[in-house]
Amino acid sequence: MAGRSPRDMLGRQGLTPVAEASSILMAKLADFRPGSEITALATCLDRVVAREITSLEDLPPWPRSTMDGYAVRAADTFGASSSMPGYLDIKGEVLMGGMPQGTVDKGCCMKIPTGGLAPDGSDAVVMLEHTVAVDEKMIEVVKGVGSGQNLIARGEDVARGQKIFDPGHRLRPQDLGLLAGLGIKELELFCPVRVGILSTGDEIVPWHEDPPAGKIRDINSITLAALATREHTVVKDYGIAPDSFDGFLSVMEKATAENDVVLFSGGSSVGMRDLGERVIETMGNPGILVHGVALKPGKPIIIGLHDKTVLFGLPGHPVSAMVCFELFVKQAIKKLSGLAVSGLPAPTVTARLSRNINSAAGRLDLIRVRLKKLEGYIVAEPVLGKSGAMSTLARADGFFFIEEPLQGLSQDDCVEVHLFK
Amino acid sequence: MAGRSPRDMLGRQGLTPVAEASSILMAKLADFRPGSEITALATCLDRVVAREITSLEDLPPWPRSTMDGYAVRAADTFGASSSMPGYLDIKGEVLMGGMPQGTVDKGCCMKIPTGGLAPDGSDAVVMLEHTVAVDEKMIEVVKGVGSGQNLIARGEDVARGQKIFDPGHRLRPQDLGLLAGLGIKELELFCPVRVGILSTGDEIVPWHEDPPAGKIRDINSITLAALATREHTVVKDYGIAPDSFDGFLSVMEKATAENDVVLFSGGSSVGMRDLGERVIETMGNPGILVHGVALKPGKPIIIGLHDKTVLFGLPGHPVSAMVCFELFVKQAIKKLSGLAVSGLPAPTVTARLSRNINSAAGRLDLIRVRLKKLEGYIVAEPVLGKSGAMSTLARADGFFFIEEPLQGLSQDDCVEVHLFK
Repeated sequence: MAGRSPRDMLGRQGLTPVAEASSILMAKLADFRPGSEITALATCLDRVVAREITSLEDLPPWPRSTMDGYAVRAADTFGASSSMPGYLDIKGEVLMGGMPQGTVDKGCCMKIPTGGLAPDGSDAVVMLEHTVAVDEKMIEVVKGVGSGQNLIARGEDVARGQKIFDPGHRLRPQDLGLLAGLGIKELELFCPVRVGILSTGDEIVPWHEDPPAGKIRDINSITLAALATREHTVVKDYGIAPDSFDGFLSVMEKATAENDVVLFSGGSSVGMRDLGERVIETMGNPGILVHGVALKPGKPIIIGLHDKTVLFGLPGHPVSAMVCFELFVKQAIKKLSGLAVSGLPAPTVTARLSRNINSAAGRLDLIRVRLKKLEGYIVAEPVLGKSGAMSTLARADGFFFIEEPLQGLSQDDCVEVHLFK
Repeated sequence: MAGRSPRDMLGRQGLTPVAEASSILMAKLADFRPGSEITALATCLDRVVAREITSLEDLPPWPRSTMDGYAVRAADTFGASSSMPGYLDIKGEVLMGGMPQGTVDKGCCMKIPTGGLAPDGSDAVVMLEHTVAVDEKMIEVVKGVGSGQNLIARGEDVARGQKIFDPGHRLRPQDLGLLAGLGIKELELFCPVRVGILSTGDEIVPWHEDPPAGKIRDINSITLAALATREHTVVKDYGIAPDSFDGFLSVMEKATAENDVVLFSGGSSVGMRDLGERVIETMGNPGILVHGVALKPGKPIIIGLHDKTVLFGLPGHPVSAMVCFELFVKQAIKKLSGLAVSGLPAPTVTARLSRNINSAAGRLDLIRVRLKKLEGYIVAEPVLGKSGAMSTLARADGFFFIEEPLQGLSQDDCVEVHLFK
């Protein structure tokens, strides 16, 4: 089994470095290609393009003015200045939304609004500001224009046959606008990723129930569901699975059959971790890929695969579970959603660390911080607390990493903070 | 009318600097307070807290172990080491999800899983790794623990009566988790901002229709609707308003009565700008706040207010309309949604500019860029093109600003790029 190290005396495996764990997972997903579906444009926001889109039209379909002014033959205005104006006869007016009535002959012009269609014969627009009305029939041009000036040519925005979007592009608001402008009313998109979520653990009850003595409410399901929703997935909650091997296996098999990604969490104890591990191994095909990563918080994650469904056994501590989502689940979702890999860094806020902070060498540490604005710079204050303490995440604005080789960072060191959305 | 400069010879007003335009608008909105509503937790993602939330419970409700090991009296383990182990009698086992059966007396311990409730008498947990089983009834402790170690105390995450969130906080996935953990099933949130969108212009037809000769499809409505949706608003589309004063006024009055923000766009020509201006002035109370800003693209924006509804006359060019949304509409929506102002900068990607780029002094320029990853750094390539060209936005990954005092930037200058979401 790739990436697994020998078990230690407690039956635990050695820890896989985060980058290696990520590579093991992504290598297994390399050939996955999501299904696609034809989708109406109005519902395409944040969806991912499945098939290259090319334009069937020119945009704009006719040359249009980008200024209020007069459509002219540029050659008629060459050298015009306020001391040496050019004189042009007004042959009419282009109305918005209408086809121009008439053509612009030599020595003539037509009044035109921004967005108006350039009449035949014209090849430029003189801005209103650069003309002086002589009378109703004639203007002085006090500044010449070059050919094409103040016009957007037919097909200048997008030419017919031009490629608009590659497969793997996530559609943003402006992309919908462009597609609308080109008359593309539906398109082939990758199907959204389906994420199944279940919790385990004798000690937890659904969050909307009142826990009897000794039990606590499930925090992870609602958090993970919201995180997955943010990634534009379709989420299904499978509730709290029984702690027995057979009971847990049966819910896992159902969730795995119905989803592209399954997240289970709650098994922080050795017993529950073992249960999760045994279930994934039993399901097999291929089974466990990674068990335990050199990450704090988030160490006890299990990453598995069953056929084409990625299985994540997330730590029971909610902070650890969220960190694992951020580092591994998000990446898998992006891949399964068909998104092209940009290789670009995530945007960050640069801040100065408020205090020294230690880290063990060989381990990636994710430090939650609260940001404060001081005069001229931003300070990142680490939010300390146990990884079982959900309030540390609620108090934090974001996080930064202490990379594996480092044993810590010092006060006033610059850190790149990823903000929680 | 605050912020309006005298009209020039074409009847246009002087341009207001962007920061001043923003201040004029925000000053008018200073006292606005959105309505609130009681909302079920499951639907609270991205909503804004209207009333301070305090906890009615301790989290966790009982001290819990954060490790697999043995619940002990810390004093019994002081000084224990592998050469001088401490010996403890195993008095039983804490089961997950159950109340501990028995107490930990001096010289005794109980086996406990991660998440198990610490039994009475115990004040720390020795990790399994730091024990050696002597037999079924006794362990050696090979490393001592301090009081409280490997436990999360009752109320250590959140204490009863503790404030969790201030009004103005937008609820993120981890915040839902914390609220769920505390048994908060519904809460008082600000009502979502309602945004009405209409387009104007004789030349445009709805994007889903095929335009007759001389007309083009409406690009702005679908783009603005998607941008507003991203800001967690409720969007209503009022279609394409008639170009006549009475017709336009009537749609505007309806949209204004039904929304907190109204966006109209399409009037890039002087005639349409005048129409928008006249309608807002006629509606009054107070009417136009800003008309024209020193911004490229986006100059011809009109910002108005009618009673408690903010009115934006956005430029007809889709690029300009989107830039105005980014700079002004978003800010108004955030304020009207009740969001607290963080004062923190937006996250950015630092990049090197690929070429020299000019800007007029006294004007804020927003430059669209495409990012490319080179070895060791990121390059920002300006996406040039007319502001009527929607494809420039579709090709861009984000944008940076050239501030008013500057006349441009040089190749290899560092810029802070805001990514399009």
